[in-house]
Amino acid sequence: MPIVLETQGSFAFGGAVVTGADGNTFHGDHGYAQYQIPPDARALPLVMWHGGGQFSKTWETTPDGRDGFQNIFLRRGFSTYIIDQPRRGRAGRSTAGTTIPDGEPDEANLFTIFRLGVWTPPDPPRFFPGVQFPQDADSIDQYFRQVTPDTGTPGGGADGVGDGAAAATDAVAALFEKIGPAVLITHSASGTLGWQTALKNANVRAIVSYEPTVFLFPEGDAPPPPGYAPALPVSPEEFDKLTDIPIQIVFGDNIASEPAGIFGVDLWVRSVPAAEAFVDAVNARGGRAELLHLPEAGLAGNTHFPFSDLNNVAVADLLSEFLAEQELDRRDVQPAP
Amino acid sequence: MPIVLETQGSFAFGGAVVTGADGNTFHGDHGYAQYQIPPDARALPLVMWHGGGQFSKTWETTPDGRDGFQNIFLRRGFSTYIIDQPRRGRAGRSTAGTTIPDGEPDEANLFTIFRLGVWTPPDPPRFFPGVQFPQDADSIDQYFRQVTPDTGTPGGGADGVGDGAAAATDAVAALFEKIGPAVLITHSASGTLGWQTALKNANVRAIVSYEPTVFLFPEGDAPPPPGYAPALPVSPEEFDKLTDIPIQIVFGDNIASEPAGIFGVDLWVRSVPAAEAFVDAVNARGGRAELLHLPEAGLAGNTHFPFSDLNNVAVADLLSEFLAEQELDRRDVQPAP
Repeated sequence: MPIVLETQGSFAFGGAVVTGADGNTFHGDHGYAQYQIPPDARALPLVMWHGGGQFSKTWETTPDGRDGFQNIFLRRGFSTYIIDQPRRGRAGRSTAGTTIPDGEPDEANLFTIFRLGVWTPPDPPRFFPGVQFPQDADSIDQYFRQVTPDTGTPGGGADGVGDGAAAATDAVAALFEKIGPAVLITHSASGTLGWQTALKNANVRAIVSYEPTVFLFPEGDAPPPPGYAPALPVSPEEFDKLTDIPIQIVFGDNIASEPAGIFGVDLWVRSVPAAEAFVDAVNARGGRAELLHLPEAGLAGNTHFPFSDLNNVAVADLLSEFLAEQELDRRDVQPAP
Repeated sequence: MPIVLETQGSFAFGGAVVTGADGNTFHGDHGYAQYQIPPDARALPLVMWHGGGQFSKTWETTPDGRDGFQNIFLRRGFSTYIIDQPRRGRAGRSTAGTTIPDGEPDEANLFTIFRLGVWTPPDPPRFFPGVQFPQDADSIDQYFRQVTPDTGTPGGGADGVGDGAAAATDAVAALFEKIGPAVLITHSASGTLGWQTALKNANVRAIVSYEPTVFLFPEGDAPPPPGYAPALPVSPEEFDKLTDIPIQIVFGDNIASEPAGIFGVDLWVRSVPAAEAFVDAVNARGGRAELLHLPEAGLAGNTHFPFSDLNNVAVADLLSEFLAEQELDRRDVQPAP
C-alpha cells in the first residue's frame, strides 16, 4: 500500500549560538527533526525520540527491512517527527567538544543490554529462546550499525543530568513550542529527558516511553526506589505537571528477576521497580500513568527495541489502543491540556 | 500536490567490522541511505551525496523551508537515495577516532566559501547583490545548522585521499552494488569521491557534480592545471572508465576572476579551470563530459548550493534537461553501460 504525504521536510530546532569578539559565529546544540504529514492527519503528531547511542534510525526500517514505527504510524494517519537529539546524528554540531576513540569492540555489552540474549565474551552470543529478533547475519549487521557516537558532551547519558541533558531538553521543548501540541514517544535514555521536556513545555500532551531507566520523583515525597536508577528529584510543583498528561511506560520480555552481576542484565532488574514507583508517585498525586508489560499483554520475546522487533505491528497495535483510549488519535480536535 | 511513495526506508551500506581476540565486535565505517521510491519510478534512481562538513540535509528542505532536490525529484518520478557518508551524520560509527573541539566561531569562513557573499570579521557579512539566498535571520540560522563534524578520520577532505576517502568510496561503491545502476549526484568535496566511486563500480551510470574542487587525471597524460586543486593521478586505464558515462559539472555565480588572498574566494578561482581541464581530459579520451556555468544558462546569483538556492526549481529543470538528453530519465529501460 503506497504512503501518501501531504508534505515532508526537515529542520533544526532550538540550539545555541557562540559569538566571538569579532562577530564571527558558531551555531550548535540544536536538534534535528524529519517530518512527514499525511493528508487529513490526526490532530496530534507523534514525536519520536531515540535512546542512548542511537539516532532517528530507531523508528525507521527495522534491521531485517520491515516497516518501523515511522511508516506504520504514517499509514495509520499520524504525522511523524523523528528526531536526532543535540550532539547526535544529524544534529552533530556541538558547542562542547568530545573525543571519539578508535573503534573498540563493545557490541557484546550492547547485545546483552538490548536483550537479544546474553553475550559474555569469549563465549559466543546466545539469543534468548523465542526472542523477537531476526538472527540472520545481515540483520545483526544492520542492527549494530544503528549505533552512533555523541559529538559533544552527551545528552542521553543514563543519569539524564548535566550540560548535555539541558541542551537536549531545551531543544526538544523548543521543538514542541514550534510544532504545537503533540505526543512524545521516548526510548531508553530519552525516557528521563522526556519527563524533563514535559516540565518545560505543556505542548507535550502525552508520553509513551519504551523501557526508560531513570525517573523523576517529587522531592520530599516518596523516596526513590533502591537500585540502579539515579532518580532525579524535582520540586512537587514541577512533578505535578506530569499528572496533567497521560503516560504509558512499556517493557518487553526476558527481564531477569534477580541481579546476575552483568550490567546489561541488572539494568532491567532495577529499572522495572523504579518505573513502578514512578507510576505510583504520579498516580498518588492525581495523575494517570500506567505500566504495560508486553508479556502480560500476550506478547512474548520482546527486546529493548519492541517497536522494531519481529512482532512490532502487534506492539504498534497496543500503542494505537492507548492513543485511542486517551483520545489522542482524534482528527477533529486537540485534547485540552 | 501530495507526494506518493511506493515505499520508503533506510539502511546502512558497506563498512568494516573490528573483531577482538575474544570475539567481541565493532561495526563502523558504513554509509547511511534514506530512500524513497515513487510508484512507476524512472529506471535509474538518483543517489545524492553531500559535501564537506555537510550531511544528507543538503538535499532536503531548503533553509527557508522550500522543497529541496529530494522532494523535487520525487515529484518528478525519480527514486531518491540521500546518503550520509561514513563518519558523518547518521553514519557516525567509525573505526578511526577523532577529537571534536569545543565550538569555535568559524562561520565567516563558510559564508565566504559557500559564496553567500564575503565575510571577513570584524567586518559584518556582506551578501553578494542579487545572491539567490534568503537573508532573513531564520534562514541563516537553519543554514549554519546544516553543518556537522566528522566523527572519525575525514572522508570528505578537500584532497580526497587517505583512509577516510577509501572508507567513503568503498562504502558508496557497495551501495551501488546493492541498489544497481543509478545516477550519482555529488556536491563539493564529494565530487572527487564520486569520480573515485565510479572507478570502483560500473553501476554509477552518470555523474552530475555541483561545484567539485578536486579532479582525477590520467597519469602521464595531460598535466594537471595549476592552482588549488591537488589533482589526483590515476592510471590511464582507470581514468578511461570515466569516459564510459555522461558527466556534467555545474558551477554557480559570483566566482571571482582573480585571486583575492581569501581562501573562500580563491578556492573557486582555482577550481573552475581545474574542472575545465578535467572535462577536456575526459573528452580527449573519448568521453562525454560537460561543464555548465549557471550564469551562461541564464541563472544569476547562485551560491555553492544551487540545489537549495531561491531559484532551485530552475536549477532542477536544468538537471532534468540533462537527464533527458542523456536518456537517464527513462521508465522503461536502463541504458547499457
